[in-house]
Amino acid sequence: MYPKLFIPGPTHVRKEILEAQTVPMIGHRAPEYSKLQLEVTPKLQQLLYTQQRVYLYASSSTGVMEGSVRQASTGKPILFTVCGAFSQRWYEIGLQNGIPSEKVEVPLGQGITPELVDEALSKGDYDAITLTMNETATGVMSPVKEIAALVRQKYPDVLILVDAVSCMAGVKIEFDAWGLDVCFAGVQKCFALPPGLTVCAVSDRARERAKQVKYPGHYFAYAQMDKRYDKGQTPATPAISIIQALNKQMDDILAEGLENRWQRHQEMASIVQDWARKYFALFADERFLSPTVTNITNTRGISVEGLNQELRKRGAIISNGYGDLKEKCFRIAHMGDLTVEDIRWLLEQMNDILGLQ
Amino acid sequence: MYPKLFIPGPTHVRKEILEAQTVPMIGHRAPEYSKLQLEVTPKLQQLLYTQQRVYLYASSSTGVMEGSVRQASTGKPILFTVCGAFSQRWYEIGLQNGIPSEKVEVPLGQGITPELVDEALSKGDYDAITLTMNETATGVMSPVKEIAALVRQKYPDVLILVDAVSCMAGVKIEFDAWGLDVCFAGVQKCFALPPGLTVCAVSDRARERAKQVKYPGHYFAYAQMDKRYDKGQTPATPAISIIQALNKQMDDILAEGLENRWQRHQEMASIVQDWARKYFALFADERFLSPTVTNITNTRGISVEGLNQELRKRGAIISNGYGDLKEKCFRIAHMGDLTVEDIRWLLEQMNDILGLQ
Repeated sequence: MYPKLFIPGPTHVRKEILEAQTVPMIGHRAPEYSKLQLEVTPKLQQLLYTQQRVYLYASSSTGVMEGSVRQASTGKPILFTVCGAFSQRWYEIGLQNGIPSEKVEVPLGQGITPELVDEALSKGDYDAITLTMNETATGVMSPVKEIAALVRQKYPDVLILVDAVSCMAGVKIEFDAWGLDVCFAGVQKCFALPPGLTVCAVSDRARERAKQVKYPGHYFAYAQMDKRYDKGQTPATPAISIIQALNKQMDDILAEGLENRWQRHQEMASIVQDWARKYFALFADERFLSPTVTNITNTRGISVEGLNQELRKRGAIISNGYGDLKEKCFRIAHMGDLTVEDIRWLLEQMNDILGLQ
Repeated sequence: MYPKLFIPGPTHVRKEILEAQTVPMIGHRAPEYSKLQLEVTPKLQQLLYTQQRVYLYASSSTGVMEGSVRQASTGKPILFTVCGAFSQRWYEIGLQNGIPSEKVEVPLGQGITPELVDEALSKGDYDAITLTMNETATGVMSPVKEIAALVRQKYPDVLILVDAVSCMAGVKIEFDAWGLDVCFAGVQKCFALPPGLTVCAVSDRARERAKQVKYPGHYFAYAQMDKRYDKGQTPATPAISIIQALNKQMDDILAEGLENRWQRHQEMASIVQDWARKYFALFADERFLSPTVTNITNTRGISVEGLNQELRKRGAIISNGYGDLKEKCFRIAHMGDLTVEDIRWLLEQMNDILGLQ
């Protein structure tokens, strides 16, 4: 009845993770909750290779995208790097908040490069740069590590804000070593949890910057989160059930081993990429292929909607192309708790439905 | 091991409601999700006696408090009515967002009256007024119906923004008939659901007003919600598991009968109030006693912390006084799915622990 999700979020959630939400309700000012948050936070720090703060927001990532730019801008512009629909949305969020917002854009399928960033940053005096590490709309991963190295070296005062929505917990992100300032993701992607919670690492530098912002807002304000951070609490009521599930899932993620997890994601991606090269074509430039979601150009002119209806009968769904790419592309997500066997099974079904061999 | 919660949120969540979160994950752009949202929304409209829109935000109420004032202010000030810590916070949220914010305040334990509002609104030209219907910190309910009648009659252009966090689904709120513009609540209070979701009714008038706001923000923007509202979707990924639980809970709420539900809350409140009058004293003015949470003045100088430790051994917890009222007061919540029997049991335990008879 419920198809297995090969879409780029929400992803398949294992039964035992769904059930971890059923722990009896606890008070968010009671010791049971503090214990939970103080337990799960170091696991998240381990995942993100950071000693700095990791906040838990009861929100989708979109809210945290908004909070991060509001708290980065002291009046100088923010440079938004745009490579698809989700990075474009971030730019629009900047405008909708009255933040001086400039953008640098690459064609769909391309990624952001250090060279592009260097050229753009050299032309102005910016408060921050936004990077959509994994553009879910196009299946593009940009080299955040290399870009961050450039920014940290040549533009030390520019904050680096990273949307890692569809790749955090699926690829290695060394928050401290790379010198990032904000890095967030909703948990319904590679964390393979129910949606409604965003994990967000914030550097000490970004927290200091926020103190200089005249109107930082409230709900997403680091200053608010910091009031109860050491106590293992959040200022507003947190998404307790999802955090219970996150705590269990983090144990499973660490038990799998982080390097194994990154490897599994890369392996699933390679299988899908090979299949796409053989039967269709990859939409993204080969230099920027995402390890978590593959956008496939519909070179055969199949009905993506029709394919999905057939897949549904067999217990799975994939995603159509995003926005203008609908029917021109389709996307297979290979993230979270999906396995190599799941991916092989899916591709067999697709071959069978489409008569490919 | 887990005490039953007699605190003003999160409240006790029944096992079958916790389990309703374990429905297999669905895509938020798939028909399964649209069906869910289109199913639950009319139930919420019924609960709030409204034909206008009801949004589901993946957020705590605090975020929606912020969104509501950001979208109400076209440059004229907002009048914040303050009667305790949570209404005061709303005022601070206004300031933190650069909104021209004025406040009118009553002493702790008092409620906001139509006369007070009339006097304050007559002195200026306001975009909106905020009302904290049930001030959780003091156990005070203000007469929103009467205040709204006054505002609609004498100040038709002033939007009425209502924080109903700790009373929605516990008392009757006739959104349309009263002429409210925004009314929201997190579901971890009288809805008796896990936290992370806010239900928010918004009038057509408030949606029109928001279109005149230069920087309405993004995540909480009604214009964003409206893009997919008719399709039964939200712009960002919604808190799907909690919405599954909400859908089940709304069936149970409607099966109980709304009038029965209001009656049950009033009955639980009366029992606690009588007990408080007999053994301690009510903190709130008798005219403003909340039907969902009672703040009790600690006239006997008991150790509230100690009482709670003993209660915990017996499987329950109550709340200490809020902020400066800690140990000077204690709060018993009688909301959500708690029953008259639960309340009687709790008071018996307290009598036994404290040696009252």
